[in-house]
Amino acid sequence: MPAEGPIAILAGSGRLPVELVEHLDRAGSQFRVIAMRGFADRRLTRRADAIVNLLDIGRILGILESWRPTIVTLAGAVSRPGLAALLGASSFLRNRAEIQRVFAGGDDRLLRGAVRLLEEHGHRVVGAHELAPQLLACADLDSRVRPGRQEEEAIRTGLALLDALSCFDMGQGAVIEGTRVLAVEGPEGTDSMLRRVARLRRWSFGRRGRGGVLVKTSKKGQDLRVDMPAVGPRTIEEAARAGLAGIALGEGATLVLDRAETLRQADRLNLFLVSVPTFGEDKP
Amino acid sequence: MPAEGPIAILAGSGRLPVELVEHLDRAGSQFRVIAMRGFADRRLTRRADAIVNLLDIGRILGILESWRPTIVTLAGAVSRPGLAALLGASSFLRNRAEIQRVFAGGDDRLLRGAVRLLEEHGHRVVGAHELAPQLLACADLDSRVRPGRQEEEAIRTGLALLDALSCFDMGQGAVIEGTRVLAVEGPEGTDSMLRRVARLRRWSFGRRGRGGVLVKTSKKGQDLRVDMPAVGPRTIEEAARAGLAGIALGEGATLVLDRAETLRQADRLNLFLVSVPTFGEDKP
Repeated sequence: MPAEGPIAILAGSGRLPVELVEHLDRAGSQFRVIAMRGFADRRLTRRADAIVNLLDIGRILGILESWRPTIVTLAGAVSRPGLAALLGASSFLRNRAEIQRVFAGGDDRLLRGAVRLLEEHGHRVVGAHELAPQLLACADLDSRVRPGRQEEEAIRTGLALLDALSCFDMGQGAVIEGTRVLAVEGPEGTDSMLRRVARLRRWSFGRRGRGGVLVKTSKKGQDLRVDMPAVGPRTIEEAARAGLAGIALGEGATLVLDRAETLRQADRLNLFLVSVPTFGEDKP
Repeated sequence: MPAEGPIAILAGSGRLPVELVEHLDRAGSQFRVIAMRGFADRRLTRRADAIVNLLDIGRILGILESWRPTIVTLAGAVSRPGLAALLGASSFLRNRAEIQRVFAGGDDRLLRGAVRLLEEHGHRVVGAHELAPQLLACADLDSRVRPGRQEEEAIRTGLALLDALSCFDMGQGAVIEGTRVLAVEGPEGTDSMLRRVARLRRWSFGRRGRGGVLVKTSKKGQDLRVDMPAVGPRTIEEAARAGLAGIALGEGATLVLDRAETLRQADRLNLFLVSVPTFGEDKP
């Protein structure tokens, strides 16, 4: 059905949709933005072609039908806390039971449901990283500090742990020190997990040095078009506060937002930031 | 070497050593207590035969040699936060490097190390549950409320998750709602994890009802003589505050402290408390 219209961006919260738009601007691509009310950054709502309520599916589908986009992409998070507010004023809610059901699962089930719905309506859905591949963590992450032997062991442990967790619709992040697991990320998110680790370490016995690694990657078999794990300058700051030695990102399975500033921040705070090949990758 | 001396109890923190001592008193068993300074309950330090610093291994071994106990048991936790204080005033520390190495692993590596050391000195080490089996979670946990179908699904998911985590020297607890993992327990402990879930749910969208299950069990292959997971009345309170529907405990792999009060508390707060057969049990 869609032929040669623009790229349509469904923009949630965070920097990802902002960076995607900047990239498409620079590349001279044709695109239009549907900003999610209550989620999208102000920089986006100011220039959005439409601002909609996340759950107003009918309106979103109607807009897309009129645009006839070649490609639709979902960029940015639509977290549950934000949804709380939305659902508070949910006069627009048509199918509460269905939404509750989707919400009983992991966060990205909601987004996978959205992708399926868009595809059923004839749209081609791609991930933001396919439109702007330079956002992906890849081997060129060249922080000044590099992981030592202990950190490499922690990275291996972390990847194995996330691998074991990947069939539970969770587990995109963990903090490991040596072979000791300090935290596994749940729905609270990476920043909150890092603050937990900071508290743990404050109690922990008289350690002054740095240690431990944040390992982040995608779930095995995760649809990378939805909710790909991402880090940015704030992740570096929280990791430093948690006393970590660095961050390891699944290669091609994680996004680095604001890359230049993120790397500068890592260098400033003496953390390493590297990408690592992950499990289950069958490279040719 | 040991012949027919008393049972020797190395008492850490919490209710377990207190209940063990009460049980042995009632049973008329011969026993003596070495209380760990800074960890053991005051009820125990008052009646202990010796009060020692946890890391003063030489003194502990000397006392045991003079007692010639038939059995030695380690009861109660010796958590890292407590160790922080101890290590602050660590003039008695003889082998800091060795201790640091042990501490780089999971908490129970320290205790496993202690068991090995005691055995090398000819002692027979058993778990507190072997001396007082009625402390174990078993099929007679008869809370008034029982798990429903959704909760049973959550319990299955939780057991599978803990199974997957059990080779990582962690993962004795998790909170699941339906098939969604709300939290995995790290070194912060069960109570702290439950408070995290309470915060998550406060954000979560307008849910008023109860849901979710705390699943606790031992690691597969865990030496049950050390650091067996336990619940008590406070666990029930924290679970209720986190909005959970109930608690499922690995049968024969978890301790229920203050059982009568724990069950009363569960009934009062409308939570279920059940034991469930766990993975890897090959019963005859």
